[in-house]
Amino acid sequence: MDLSHRKVNKNIQFKDAAGNVLANTEIKIKQTNHEFLFGCGGFDFIPYVMNGDENFKQITESWLEIFNYATLPFYWGNFERTEGSPDTEILMKTAQYLNSENVKVKGHPLCWHTVCADWLMKYDNATIMQKQLERIDREVGGFKGVIDMWDVINEVVIMPIFDKYDNAITRICKEKGRVGLIKEVFDRAYANNPDAILLLNDFNTSINYEILIDGCLNAGVPISAIGIQSHQHQGYWGNEKVYEVLERFSQFKLPIHFTENTLISGDIMPAYIEDLNDWQVDEWPSTPEGEARQAKEIEEMYRILFENPLVQAITTWDFKDGAWLKAPSGYLRLDNSKKPSFEMLKDLVKNEWWTDTTVKTDEMGFAKVEAFKGEYEVAAGERSVNVKLTDNKNMLIEF
Amino acid sequence: MDLSHRKVNKNIQFKDAAGNVLANTEIKIKQTNHEFLFGCGGFDFIPYVMNGDENFKQITESWLEIFNYATLPFYWGNFERTEGSPDTEILMKTAQYLNSENVKVKGHPLCWHTVCADWLMKYDNATIMQKQLERIDREVGGFKGVIDMWDVINEVVIMPIFDKYDNAITRICKEKGRVGLIKEVFDRAYANNPDAILLLNDFNTSINYEILIDGCLNAGVPISAIGIQSHQHQGYWGNEKVYEVLERFSQFKLPIHFTENTLISGDIMPAYIEDLNDWQVDEWPSTPEGEARQAKEIEEMYRILFENPLVQAITTWDFKDGAWLKAPSGYLRLDNSKKPSFEMLKDLVKNEWWTDTTVKTDEMGFAKVEAFKGEYEVAAGERSVNVKLTDNKNMLIEF
Repeated sequence: MDLSHRKVNKNIQFKDAAGNVLANTEIKIKQTNHEFLFGCGGFDFIPYVMNGDENFKQITESWLEIFNYATLPFYWGNFERTEGSPDTEILMKTAQYLNSENVKVKGHPLCWHTVCADWLMKYDNATIMQKQLERIDREVGGFKGVIDMWDVINEVVIMPIFDKYDNAITRICKEKGRVGLIKEVFDRAYANNPDAILLLNDFNTSINYEILIDGCLNAGVPISAIGIQSHQHQGYWGNEKVYEVLERFSQFKLPIHFTENTLISGDIMPAYIEDLNDWQVDEWPSTPEGEARQAKEIEEMYRILFENPLVQAITTWDFKDGAWLKAPSGYLRLDNSKKPSFEMLKDLVKNEWWTDTTVKTDEMGFAKVEAFKGEYEVAAGERSVNVKLTDNKNMLIEF
Repeated sequence: MDLSHRKVNKNIQFKDAAGNVLANTEIKIKQTNHEFLFGCGGFDFIPYVMNGDENFKQITESWLEIFNYATLPFYWGNFERTEGSPDTEILMKTAQYLNSENVKVKGHPLCWHTVCADWLMKYDNATIMQKQLERIDREVGGFKGVIDMWDVINEVVIMPIFDKYDNAITRICKEKGRVGLIKEVFDRAYANNPDAILLLNDFNTSINYEILIDGCLNAGVPISAIGIQSHQHQGYWGNEKVYEVLERFSQFKLPIHFTENTLISGDIMPAYIEDLNDWQVDEWPSTPEGEARQAKEIEEMYRILFENPLVQAITTWDFKDGAWLKAPSGYLRLDNSKKPSFEMLKDLVKNEWWTDTTVKTDEMGFAKVEAFKGEYEVAAGERSVNVKLTDNKNMLIEF
């Protein structure tokens, strides 16, 4: 497993505040964050931040033991149940709290045909489109500096042919076509925050999605990263499919984010179910065998993805069991206890792929540092500074 | 069946050469060609034009009884077997002969991974691309005025993942991506003949092709018409699929050409065959029941397509049995006798959808003319003129 692309390997010279080299000195190199985005759904932070609920405090504390990247919900139909009354304050406070914990936040999604606002349907298509673009102004512009990553548009492959129920977004996608709609919403998001990471996101990993991305890029859509969903309620893809999907979507040479990863620790959903939402059960227990399997599958998948240089983020969808579809899809059981998958992933993220080391400088104050890319507290004796280590260039650190 | 979009309905005033109105005069309105393109593979014209062979004379004379539009083969691997020695003269003479018979010609195809020139494979990708573009200059530029319709690129959905054998075009498509390659070859064809009808053509009628077209149009690819193949060796699509394909590809509001239509008059190829080319048989007989079925299916399909205002061309692939895959796919049997499908289609094209009528002018020399769009010989007594009737505007015809 070659992880050299995940690490820095550099010469650093250490000096004191007066500019004297720190010769023959022990320097502590202690990682405080990853450059890589280890993400998870952060929906549980909302009740914790807003109400301080003890149950959610426990959940979010466990969450923060592993992750540095949270997805927060901006589903239009929930975020703005009544036209003109968006939940901006709730989301802003939650996102700011996560930022204060050194967690990056992504808003999900700005445009989607599901969980869409029903009140949009009373308008004609031109008005729906205008309101969609104004929503992008409001969210991307308004949250700039707090949320600088967005799933701009979700599941476009199916969007214009989605026929389970009428909705405003399918209507405008039918009219404008997939690439036409994608281009308009991306251009608007980009205009509001040119430095933001803007994602196209889909569960369809077939040639359909490849051709869609190809068309978008040739049409000048400012896609920062390709979002790939991987809900595996019907069983682990297996390493062959993970490699195969990576290979196909690597053709665009864009960063790849695994945006919605799910592996469950209970019985597998039958294969004949086409739309996962059709599997409605009263309860879906986590089992000891399932938990062992889940940990193994998550480990294999994360190792493959972390090794691929184009992958910049992996987000597990549910942190705790019993969320979407009541599935045993989390790292925590229903009673908030930690599953084997939690301990496994924490060990990967905060131990195996984590740097906490001591180096000794030479007579000129130089030391060679090999470390996972990220943020560090670097200490010489009592003195310490915070630095980012993200490349192999020579560096000077002064205390 | 509403065919009003296929007809003109106009007031025409008739005058003599001196400018006097032809009052109360009988005018013969005799159609000589369709505006609609009733096409067929025209490969058999090559041996006839080049060698005057009696067998091919018989075939091409039957061909000309129905069709006004021919597809001629420009497969790179056959057209230019040795680099630098293209069959330009043969194709030029054949195309000019067809033009002299009032037949429009389409060249097929300029870029395709199949029947590709093997000698290209000794070059690097940049050189292959350069030679591809130079070939487009040579063919589209060189045949301008004789051939102004081109299948610019063929079967792109599968092109970069085609893995039956190595070939130069799959190599460059892998590198440039589908839309990137399409854009380059279309831009080059357009530069050589901006008035040409330039087609994207595919057998894949799935959502893949829809998304590909959507991307191309948003990327500014100058597609004049959408080409849809419909080889039905494994059985007639049925009217539901014909309507469904038309509806899906109508979203782009571009002209639609059915470029390669096949319905056979013998046993159906088994459904498990994925690539039609894998079905290799010693003989594939035409049967009386098969011939009755073929005529019925072709009639239903042509009626549906002719009624759709976006469809501007239907091309049957094989005129005579025993061509591609030795299939009984023609209007002629192996002995050049005409099948029921020939008589049926001739009756549609040259009788039911054809205008041969007489009108009588009023005192001001006006007559109302309803006629299928196309070319006409219009006669008053001994005097006649040739005119095109293609819209509903008032018109003056002087003899």
